[in-house]
Amino acid sequence: MSPTPRSQFQQLVTPSALRSYLAEFISTFLFVFVAVGSGMSARKATPDGAAWDASSLVATSLAQALSLFAAVYIAANSSGGHVNPAVTFGLAVAGHIAVPTAIFYWASQMVGSTLACLLLHVATAGQAIPTTGIAPEMTGFGGAVLEGVITFALVFTVYVAGDPRNRAAPLGVLGPLAVGLMAGSCVLAAGSFTGGSMNPARSFGPAVVSGNFKNQGVYWVGPLVGAALAALVHQHLVFPTAPDRESPHGPVESVSL
Amino acid sequence: MSPTPRSQFQQLVTPSALRSYLAEFISTFLFVFVAVGSGMSARKATPDGAAWDASSLVATSLAQALSLFAAVYIAANSSGGHVNPAVTFGLAVAGHIAVPTAIFYWASQMVGSTLACLLLHVATAGQAIPTTGIAPEMTGFGGAVLEGVITFALVFTVYVAGDPRNRAAPLGVLGPLAVGLMAGSCVLAAGSFTGGSMNPARSFGPAVVSGNFKNQGVYWVGPLVGAALAALVHQHLVFPTAPDRESPHGPVESVSL
Amino acid sequence: MSPTPRSQFQQLVTPSALRSYLAEFISTFLFVFVAVGSGMSARKATPDGAAWDASSLVATSLAQALSLFAAVYIAANSSGGHVNPAVTFGLAVAGHIAVPTAIFYWASQMVGSTLACLLLHVATAGQAIPTTGIAPEMTGFGGAVLEGVITFALVFTVYVAGDPRNRAAPLGVLGPLAVGLMAGSCVLAAGSFTGGSMNPARSFGPAVVSGNFKNQGVYWVGPLVGAALAALVHQHLVFPTAPDRESPHGPVESVSL
Amino acid sequence: MSPTPRSQFQQLVTPSALRSYLAEFISTFLFVFVAVGSGMSARKATPDGAAWDASSLVATSLAQALSLFAAVYIAANSSGGHVNPAVTFGLAVAGHIAVPTAIFYWASQMVGSTLACLLLHVATAGQAIPTTGIAPEMTGFGGAVLEGVITFALVFTVYVAGDPRNRAAPLGVLGPLAVGLMAGSCVLAAGSFTGGSMNPARSFGPAVVSGNFKNQGVYWVGPLVGAALAALVHQHLVFPTAPDRESPHGPVESVSL
Repeated sequence: MSPTPRSQFQQLVTPSALRSYLAEFISTFLFVFVAVGSGMSARKATPDGAAWDASSLVATSLAQALSLFAAVYIAANSSGGHVNPAVTFGLAVAGHIAVPTAIFYWASQMVGSTLACLLLHVATAGQAIPTTGIAPEMTGFGGAVLEGVITFALVFTVYVAGDPRNRAAPLGVLGPLAVGLMAGSCVLAAGSFTGGSMNPARSFGPAVVSGNFKNQGVYWVGPLVGAALAALVHQHLVFPTAPDRESPHGPVESVSL
Repeated sequence: MSPTPRSQFQQLVTPSALRSYLAEFISTFLFVFVAVGSGMSARKATPDGAAWDASSLVATSLAQALSLFAAVYIAANSSGGHVNPAVTFGLAVAGHIAVPTAIFYWASQMVGSTLACLLLHVATAGQAIPTTGIAPEMTGFGGAVLEGVITFALVFTVYVAGDPRNRAAPLGVLGPLAVGLMAGSCVLAAGSFTGGSMNPARSFGPAVVSGNFKNQGVYWVGPLVGAALAALVHQHLVFPTAPDRESPHGPVESVSL
Repeated sequence: MSPTPRSQFQQLVTPSALRSYLAEFISTFLFVFVAVGSGMSARKATPDGAAWDASSLVATSLAQALSLFAAVYIAANSSGGHVNPAVTFGLAVAGHIAVPTAIFYWASQMVGSTLACLLLHVATAGQAIPTTGIAPEMTGFGGAVLEGVITFALVFTVYVAGDPRNRAAPLGVLGPLAVGLMAGSCVLAAGSFTGGSMNPARSFGPAVVSGNFKNQGVYWVGPLVGAALAALVHQHLVFPTAPDRESPHGPVESVSL
Repeated sequence: MSPTPRSQFQQLVTPSALRSYLAEFISTFLFVFVAVGSGMSARKATPDGAAWDASSLVATSLAQALSLFAAVYIAANSSGGHVNPAVTFGLAVAGHIAVPTAIFYWASQMVGSTLACLLLHVATAGQAIPTTGIAPEMTGFGGAVLEGVITFALVFTVYVAGDPRNRAAPLGVLGPLAVGLMAGSCVLAAGSFTGGSMNPARSFGPAVVSGNFKNQGVYWVGPLVGAALAALVHQHLVFPTAPDRESPHGPVESVSL
């Protein structure tokens, strides 16, 4: 049954709920640390120290694919392994996670991302933190569309992986891997055009630490719209009979398994 | 029992059948978006913005391996996760999917691929959509042979993954992964010679949007012949006793699991 | 009970035995096609068309990792998925596969590898087939040692994956993946020194088609010794109590699961 | 019940205990062989034979990701698949492995790593063994912090994968893969700054063989602190109720499954 406001509030501060926020913080911190760090490491490794080439694209895409899989994996049983405000938003849209809980998730993800970038900046003796940007010839709208499409891909995969009917083997087992690898392939596709963020937190942290919020809106509008669309399409068209009652989403439940 | 023409027609418009077409559309759209987008992103990332090097080959091959796995994964329980007219053809050849259904699958895949390329073209401010082509020194026949061999590899893997006797763990679990990674390795092998398509839809979409249908035939003849060969070899030589009655193929059934 | 010579001979021509040879032929053909083709594709993709760089190393290593996994996967239930004379030899050393059967496996693997290279040579309009070679400054002995070490890694992984006590989840499920990825990582390690073959068939085919048998012995002595060592260490030191009676090895049994 | 000192001593020399040391030796030998060898192979493959670029970063990161997964996989049922003194330390901190056993594990890992580097040095005709180093502009403290963060990521993943409540499918199955891929992504993130070691043994072996112990302390302090922190956070904050009694850690038990 739907919880009363009071019990709902209490749910926000239960030990398991607090642990879910910590899990989102840790997983997002580690994912962004790798996503941003791999870009810095690849740039530093290129001969002239500044160029961006296909090898760097492979390096950061591979890093994000592997680390997102692992980040979702380690948080799956604690918080559901969202590791991304867009994923949390997509699940909230379809009522799989309560809005108040979603807000705490967002806060945990934002703080984790920002601290990861701050630590990278300090530990590397003040190296610049690269932000996700849009190719010069592109419009903000075009960038938002690309981010929306790849976020749709990510969130739709999260929904399929989290569908109770897919929890059992064989599909269930590969859930976190499908989520991570789908995201990695999307970075390879959109990397040179928008940076392939799909994740407001992944774009927010670097912006805060570098103080560069240019086109930040693109990384919020695109992903959130794409996530909402994925949720609606999955719930109402592809799997219209998804039982909300048995929903696996929310704290201490696994989204990606 | 074999369905009557009438019931067969009704099967084409059942909600589950319509959902299977939608699933094929979504998965093919996302796969082609990543396959073509990764090629554009890699080219754009190379210093002179036009060269094609081994890093770009790795970038697009990795993108296709990861995204095909995920695309098959998300459609597995809805449509069987063909994501490729050659796979659908290979399954039709052995009678695992009815021809009328196969035609609707093909249409969904073609439309998904074309729209993905159109969206990429528009969102990137009119950048050219790269088509799959044949190396200058090669003949169309040689290209068709290479495409046939790698499509044989892909479809044979789909058959093994979809064999009811392999559905259980351990083999069953890795099905979609084996399909995606086999395809990715084949792109690495044939990439510089034919582009490593293995998929008429993946070659059709870019051709439509770019208006360049040169050698298009190669990407239909090669893959379709290779797929049919894989189906016949699997059904009659390697696993001659495959029970058609328990066939997992067709709508709302998983091909790749 | 141990079979009589007569029944043993009959076992060599049973339908299931013949299918196991066909499965080894197909899987080795596809694996070598990708291993050799990816090297050709990477070389062709490099600007000056001849250089060998780190990107090419990544390209062919990744191709071999992904395709070996898939090749083992598709043959697992038919032949055990050896795809490599050294693996077959290692299993024969510990009595997991009868010598006569092993000989038929070897023949199937050699023919598959040779035909794959021949097809690549013809389909690419006569392009040269690259053979596995040793770095100029290295000795044949040094090369054999490196090949022996990485083949030990591969065959030891095959033994662990094929151990009946690991067949159940969780270990069992990842078997073919562990085998393929271990091999891929070994190509990255030894690639610039010996080509990272670990597989006499993978080195034999290109040698036949290119007519260059230089250092061929290195790719037989090293891998066979390494494979035998892996078999003995696994059977007598690490898992001394492995029940031969329940051995999963041999035709129509899975080696890698 | 807790063992008496005497039974505890006897536990150190039981056949299964000795096998666990051998398993750690083999897995660490193979992992370091691939980690160091891939760096040498990539450097040798680069045109001028000395440059370090993004492709080389991808090559060695991918090699470490794949080989660590396989190394953990093959040792999982024998020793728990630590393959890293920091992992052993992290498990000892939380009491999941007895200190005396941990010491034998450390010794096995150190010897395995050193012999792997020695063999590489000899087999490649005396090529220099690259050691993990810190970027010129960075401080030792900064390097230790980065190593600490990525080791936290690795050990935290080991803890989640080894948690009895995650042993069952779906989470349990992907354990060794999550550990390996998380480590590989961390090499991509920190590779150009500290080499991305996360593993005192991986840094110790090359130092011994090359005779270069510069900044060696960084690769001990950082990883050990990060590992201890991961153990405490997992045990007391994220999964405070982890049942030590059913702990999967220690010899002949699987840590990573």
